[in-house]
Amino acid sequence: MKTQKGICITGIDRFELRDDCVLPEPHEIVSTGAIIRPVIWSACTTDAELAHSGCASFPYLLNKASGHEMCGIVETVGSEVTDFAVGDRVIVCATMPNWRSMLAQEGHARQSSDNMYFGIEYPDRGGSFVEHYYIRDADMNLAKIPDNVTWEQAIMVPDMMQTAFAGVQSLDMRYGDSVAVLGIGPVGLMAICAARLQGASRIYAVGGRKVCRDLAGEYGATHVIDYHEGDIVEQILACSGGAKVDTVLCCGGPADQLNNGLKLLKAGGTLASVSVYYGGVPIRIDPESVGFGYSDKTIKFIQCDGGRSCMQRLIALVAEGRVRPEKMITHRFYGMEQIEDAVNLFVRHEPSLIKPVIFNGKEVR
Amino acid sequence: MKTQKGICITGIDRFELRDDCVLPEPHEIVSTGAIIRPVIWSACTTDAELAHSGCASFPYLLNKASGHEMCGIVETVGSEVTDFAVGDRVIVCATMPNWRSMLAQEGHARQSSDNMYFGIEYPDRGGSFVEHYYIRDADMNLAKIPDNVTWEQAIMVPDMMQTAFAGVQSLDMRYGDSVAVLGIGPVGLMAICAARLQGASRIYAVGGRKVCRDLAGEYGATHVIDYHEGDIVEQILACSGGAKVDTVLCCGGPADQLNNGLKLLKAGGTLASVSVYYGGVPIRIDPESVGFGYSDKTIKFIQCDGGRSCMQRLIALVAEGRVRPEKMITHRFYGMEQIEDAVNLFVRHEPSLIKPVIFNGKEVR
Amino acid sequence: MKTQKGICITGIDRFELRDDCVLPEPHEIVSTGAIIRPVIWSACTTDAELAHSGCASFPYLLNKASGHEMCGIVETVGSEVTDFAVGDRVIVCATMPNWRSMLAQEGHARQSSDNMYFGIEYPDRGGSFVEHYYIRDADMNLAKIPDNVTWEQAIMVPDMMQTAFAGVQSLDMRYGDSVAVLGIGPVGLMAICAARLQGASRIYAVGGRKVCRDLAGEYGATHVIDYHEGDIVEQILACSGGAKVDTVLCCGGPADQLNNGLKLLKAGGTLASVSVYYGGVPIRIDPESVGFGYSDKTIKFIQCDGGRSCMQRLIALVAEGRVRPEKMITHRFYGMEQIEDAVNLFVRHEPSLIKPVIFNGKEVR
Amino acid sequence: MKTQKGICITGIDRFELRDDCVLPEPHEIVSTGAIIRPVIWSACTTDAELAHSGCASFPYLLNKASGHEMCGIVETVGSEVTDFAVGDRVIVCATMPNWRSMLAQEGHARQSSDNMYFGIEYPDRGGSFVEHYYIRDADMNLAKIPDNVTWEQAIMVPDMMQTAFAGVQSLDMRYGDSVAVLGIGPVGLMAICAARLQGASRIYAVGGRKVCRDLAGEYGATHVIDYHEGDIVEQILACSGGAKVDTVLCCGGPADQLNNGLKLLKAGGTLASVSVYYGGVPIRIDPESVGFGYSDKTIKFIQCDGGRSCMQRLIALVAEGRVRPEKMITHRFYGMEQIEDAVNLFVRHEPSLIKPVIFNGKEVR
Repeated sequence: MKTQKGICITGIDRFELRDDCVLPEPHEIVSTGAIIRPVIWSACTTDAELAHSGCASFPYLLNKASGHEMCGIVETVGSEVTDFAVGDRVIVCATMPNWRSMLAQEGHARQSSDNMYFGIEYPDRGGSFVEHYYIRDADMNLAKIPDNVTWEQAIMVPDMMQTAFAGVQSLDMRYGDSVAVLGIGPVGLMAICAARLQGASRIYAVGGRKVCRDLAGEYGATHVIDYHEGDIVEQILACSGGAKVDTVLCCGGPADQLNNGLKLLKAGGTLASVSVYYGGVPIRIDPESVGFGYSDKTIKFIQCDGGRSCMQRLIALVAEGRVRPEKMITHRFYGMEQIEDAVNLFVRHEPSLIKPVIFNGKEVR
Repeated sequence: MKTQKGICITGIDRFELRDDCVLPEPHEIVSTGAIIRPVIWSACTTDAELAHSGCASFPYLLNKASGHEMCGIVETVGSEVTDFAVGDRVIVCATMPNWRSMLAQEGHARQSSDNMYFGIEYPDRGGSFVEHYYIRDADMNLAKIPDNVTWEQAIMVPDMMQTAFAGVQSLDMRYGDSVAVLGIGPVGLMAICAARLQGASRIYAVGGRKVCRDLAGEYGATHVIDYHEGDIVEQILACSGGAKVDTVLCCGGPADQLNNGLKLLKAGGTLASVSVYYGGVPIRIDPESVGFGYSDKTIKFIQCDGGRSCMQRLIALVAEGRVRPEKMITHRFYGMEQIEDAVNLFVRHEPSLIKPVIFNGKEVR
Repeated sequence: MKTQKGICITGIDRFELRDDCVLPEPHEIVSTGAIIRPVIWSACTTDAELAHSGCASFPYLLNKASGHEMCGIVETVGSEVTDFAVGDRVIVCATMPNWRSMLAQEGHARQSSDNMYFGIEYPDRGGSFVEHYYIRDADMNLAKIPDNVTWEQAIMVPDMMQTAFAGVQSLDMRYGDSVAVLGIGPVGLMAICAARLQGASRIYAVGGRKVCRDLAGEYGATHVIDYHEGDIVEQILACSGGAKVDTVLCCGGPADQLNNGLKLLKAGGTLASVSVYYGGVPIRIDPESVGFGYSDKTIKFIQCDGGRSCMQRLIALVAEGRVRPEKMITHRFYGMEQIEDAVNLFVRHEPSLIKPVIFNGKEVR
Repeated sequence: MKTQKGICITGIDRFELRDDCVLPEPHEIVSTGAIIRPVIWSACTTDAELAHSGCASFPYLLNKASGHEMCGIVETVGSEVTDFAVGDRVIVCATMPNWRSMLAQEGHARQSSDNMYFGIEYPDRGGSFVEHYYIRDADMNLAKIPDNVTWEQAIMVPDMMQTAFAGVQSLDMRYGDSVAVLGIGPVGLMAICAARLQGASRIYAVGGRKVCRDLAGEYGATHVIDYHEGDIVEQILACSGGAKVDTVLCCGGPADQLNNGLKLLKAGGTLASVSVYYGGVPIRIDPESVGFGYSDKTIKFIQCDGGRSCMQRLIALVAEGRVRPEKMITHRFYGMEQIEDAVNLFVRHEPSLIKPVIFNGKEVR
């Protein structure tokens, strides 16, 4: 068995560069598969939270390569791959839908693995923090990067945009609806852009770090709320003259975020959550928040979207200049060994952080 | 101010016949309004639960007429009522949507009162356990009872059918989907009929009382589960060979019903709840039940439907023989003063009870 | 019976100022009604087409006041009007949904009159080209104009924005979808704005007049096509490298517009038409355009939206600066007697025309 | 190249048994593929119409095996097929969605071939009227036949039920809606069953042959109309007291069927067509039928559904006794050489015909 280097979670809050990550041999590559050489990675709160839990919810991830945000260059393609060729610049899907599954037939392709975790197609193999990343269905789960789109723009698509845009799309907004985005890390910030592109009128953005709040305003939030300054429900209702909001998106935050969102939400409205709930703490809903059951409120737990079609449509918005996700990049690193530094920004809650990228070697625009 | 007799909640677990219920004077009746003389009432778990809480969540209901399930005969109509006349046999809407409201314009008519409670259009006036019941918009919130439909059939429409059918409709079932109906009191039983009329294949019905389980089978449940016999999640998964269900409807039951439902639900599936949550106990969701947030599961809290159009469509199904709701009637009472006896069947958890009706005087078919 | 002045269609291509238009007496105003004094009107292709047909499809409109785009100031309110007061600046709904109707209960409020024609609530009374305009349900069919919104902006809401945004909303676009807007008069131009606010990527705009094509580009069309330069299907497919479009909106144009749109549309896609078909010419669909029936294509004939909630949400987008409809105004007139001049711009196909407004007296910003 | 026997369209109205149909060699079978030995076929109006046009719209079908309704026994499976084994009784999908396609990712799997025609995955190879039928993706496009389901029941699933149920599902019916089924050949008859399983109240069925009208009543149509007895629009409106219908399904019939359906349809309603339009005659819509464009009516051209998940859900309804499609079988044949006789029943409009089946050899229940 051939091996390669990769960044692995090896214990609680511990990332490590190991050299025993699986590297499939040429004959193991299925006819629809491909190998991608990473050019740029990003790290994510999820990486940090997974490590913080020591992979408690997903023990099979331990000691395997981590990582689910990567763009790179195709270096090998299987015999049946028709739409990608060696040398193509590509986005690699974070979730790896199995398009040949019953869940895909039923419209839930992104739920098509029982061992689902972002970007980990094979739990026995690992994620994309490796030298050469193997995917099984290139035609379905890669997307080409248009010439006028940079690597720094493209790397924001597979998780940040796909998660945020899936969340906002699930809100079924009408023109002029208001929305509260609770949590404005990079997913929340992309959700602000997504909400503008759904015709939202008022966009309430709730966050803590100044760097995020500033970018929220630049991205089009009409009201930016600092949760340090008091109860967020009260703050938003003060802005709105007491009117509840039409839709809510929860993007991370404390355990009572979802309940707060429901309190803010109009009767008949929809709340979507793209948060992860690793800590083992139950999600609590107060009966009053859902009108004792009478409120016609809807809650959706939304997974990051996946697949080539969706990535193509989102990268088209970037190519047309409708979304500028690269503005979120606050930190740049160089070389696989620096991935750990990138993840640690999340672990230590660096106040200047929105989103880090790591180039595989030297920077390429 | 004129008064009339009515059955009121006057304290914890206490129903009382009072004679100081408001009776609007002729000049107070708005031009779109009508007065209905009750012919048949039904009592509901909600009446019992409200009384049990001493109306804690809705204090303005105390000492006013209660009741929200009633059919009767029109005795007065306002000058602008066009589609109903004195003498018409009518179903009276349980929820009283205000069709001239912004919520109605946005598709949420049944949420159009801040003081919403079934059948209580005016919190200062009360429900339909009275001699003469006043509604403000006859053309919009009454429906005629077809000649071939009995009073006992019709009285099952305003809450039992409208709640159950709204719940099942909200599940967006596809042909051949499976559904778990958790709780098979009268709403759950109507939900079984509703699920068959959406093309469900497997219908798992979970209940406790034998009388309900028997009728569940007769109504078309393919698997009837007794929760006394063990964990309901395990029992259902044993029936299905381990397959989770496509959709879930919660119709009452213990505090962890919703979490159990989510455990049973497939990734990407929808759970609707038509339960009421009066007890003050928070609703709890285990992170695992929603795949740590990644599951694409949807939760909908659904209110009883309302309005004439919906009642007409449901009564048409009864008239065509597609639904036989009258089979649920296990107890019959005669005279307003017996309403309390009917409610007390719920309070003391009478094992032979599914649904009681109370005739206003002697029985009329 | 009191009378007032109004602009009426009195024959083929003939508009006339008459002084025998109905003016309701104070006692005739229903309790939910209001009278509005026009401040600004607009004229519309529909006015011209109606006149051109001599009102053949709607004969009851002949010799009555015409007009359906008007904003003004409330001068009288009925006793039950709660949300509007004398002196309020308001948009008057073009379609006049009857919110107390079965169609409204079924989600089709804007279809709630058999004698539907834009802005003509009472066929026996007429449209809003009058001195004092009476509407029956002020709380439901007026919307306040925010202080920072001008009359010229507001007058674009009741038909231009409500029609275009209803059309685009009905397309159920996903992020990054492409759309072809066939016909870029003022409704088509607003549709371009609406499509951007649904996250469209490529927007193909097809028109003839230079003034419209220029504004289409400014509003965000990515490809502007001149139909004088060849077959529009071929032109668009040339731009897209042969790829069909995800969605199509037909906004006026020749009889074969809808068939052209279907040719352009992807299998599984949706085409909406907000065109009017007065000429008596059948709409033709070639079997090939719908894949001999196998294509899973959808066609929707969409009416202008109506009601206060929708107008409020659209005016909020204008107030937030998301849409700048006033850029479409190319011609300004002063005084009711100039309405005819405004309409005649459409009749004679004035090349510099996009949209005219007529102030009732002198200009007010 | 190996060959086999098959029934081919060889000219206008001409079916022929040829022995030069392609039979893939073992090494040509892809790893996800399988070979099925037919046990039962059915013939379809489409076969007859195709032959009648001499395959004018699909010239590549000429001289190749025809046929798209077949159930059989698996005789070979590729190395990656996981859920089917040699000897399994299976339904073979009529449409052959390519689940690894962009159209599938966008929810339109059944549109995933440019050369789409029922059951013909490879236009260069042909349909299922052959001795051994090869499909490329067994796990995705076969479904097992439950033990308690007969061959005669199963053969009604791949086209009759999948087409009819897809059509009715696309109508988005609410409980108690009315529906007009225009055309009650076997697809229309299955649509009646499908409409009952969506909670339809009134079901108007329009047909000509007595045998079909009788079964329509047995399947649950509430009003059966004979088009020989007068204009169908007038007949239905006479039954309904003038009320238009909520939904319409067109299942074959004359060229003006769709326009008639639109005349019958309520404002805001949906009409779906599962008819095929081979004749070259344009589909005509009168402006009045769509309210001159103002009617908010929707038209959907619906293709037969496809894929294993859908087939499994429909066969489950048969297994549960909810649908009895085998009642439609009026003619039985034995041996491939009798397929032509079966098709000719359609060609000569045999009055006693609903649906024929052909056993491959002797009858098997």
